[in-house]
Amino acid sequence: MKKGTLYGVGVGPGDPELLTIKAVRILREADAVAVPDTGSGDKAALAIAQSYIAGKELILCPSPMSGNRREADACYDETAKILAERLSNGDNIAFITLGDPSVYSTYCYIQKRVAAMGFETQTIPGITSFCAAAARLGESLCEGKEPLVIVPASSMKPEAWIGLPGNKVLMKAGGKMPALTAALGRIDADIAAVTNCGMEGESVARGAEELDASAGYFSVIVVKERH
Amino acid sequence: MKKGTLYGVGVGPGDPELLTIKAVRILREADAVAVPDTGSGDKAALAIAQSYIAGKELILCPSPMSGNRREADACYDETAKILAERLSNGDNIAFITLGDPSVYSTYCYIQKRVAAMGFETQTIPGITSFCAAAARLGESLCEGKEPLVIVPASSMKPEAWIGLPGNKVLMKAGGKMPALTAALGRIDADIAAVTNCGMEGESVARGAEELDASAGYFSVIVVKERH
Repeated sequence: MKKGTLYGVGVGPGDPELLTIKAVRILREADAVAVPDTGSGDKAALAIAQSYIAGKELILCPSPMSGNRREADACYDETAKILAERLSNGDNIAFITLGDPSVYSTYCYIQKRVAAMGFETQTIPGITSFCAAAARLGESLCEGKEPLVIVPASSMKPEAWIGLPGNKVLMKAGGKMPALTAALGRIDADIAAVTNCGMEGESVARGAEELDASAGYFSVIVVKERH
Repeated sequence: MKKGTLYGVGVGPGDPELLTIKAVRILREADAVAVPDTGSGDKAALAIAQSYIAGKELILCPSPMSGNRREADACYDETAKILAERLSNGDNIAFITLGDPSVYSTYCYIQKRVAAMGFETQTIPGITSFCAAAARLGESLCEGKEPLVIVPASSMKPEAWIGLPGNKVLMKAGGKMPALTAALGRIDADIAAVTNCGMEGESVARGAEELDASAGYFSVIVVKERH
């Protein structure tokens, strides 16, 4: 029997209209849709893709929320095993992921395992949260000679990125927001943030003083150098 | 009369299936489609969007190709004037742009001018060339604690970015490819490149030795740190 293919499908940052034509086609053609499930009931990727996959079988995939490496690896191994069984039976599976599958996604850990088990995988790119945030702000991220640095803000101290050349996008600030807002208040740059871009409860802040220290996982902060 | 809105529409990097549902809707609803035109006959954004805008009026916008600042500003001023006249008449105009409008696009220069003239503008994000290249390679761009640096390779010397922390995406290498391939041959990193991603003549290179020193504007090079 022909083995199935695993598709990593980026569903974008929030607005269901920001899926690509290709993502929608792959979701519709798939035999089942795999959904990262942290057990907390918050399945953001599923909420975004919902209208395109009505009636489709869902495969809930154990997904880690803590930073514990061993626990995370166990989750990914378990997910790869579940998916491999279905792919062996010839099913094509679409694994949905927030934003783009190549930018800080769980999918990359799953893809490596499933590919190493001999299955075909294919990635369908998605709109990143930072492109959507820039669009919402009506701002560019980088122009001309400016580099752009994407910073995983929960695991990099401000000292580690503040001096880097170019504009910055701070992602996944999470619990580090208080330290981050303090650091951003001290630098000379144009700062803006979008929380829950394209989702319920969307909000925009301009200037370090407007940043909400309680803003969480779904915040993107854009820091632009002044010329 | 109600003034029209200028939409900056990202059409993605090449594959017409990589437009978003929203981009297609905006293109279909627009009264006219504005197209950057460098005069060289190479209208890449138009080729990508073609199937969605059959029969639609096109507005060709003077677009600079040289790096001359004054010439570029004159082009943008002229384009803004052309668009403002149409917006004043109540027309909604979709300005199409390769990839995403917030990442090294001509649109941002136009948008600033048109907004300053009092018109409403709205940005529709697109798939970036680097997300599409990563998808094509089956590789992530950044995982966990890794930052990602987007480098405008034609205007930054290798010394200026090679030592920066994290993975790198080199864009717009253009005529700097020979110097770039030489620099990449000397560093310890995983290197892969996609040229014309999703377009005719697509090619993939893995390893610095496979890089084509003649690869041009539509090449994206991904440089990943080894851990």
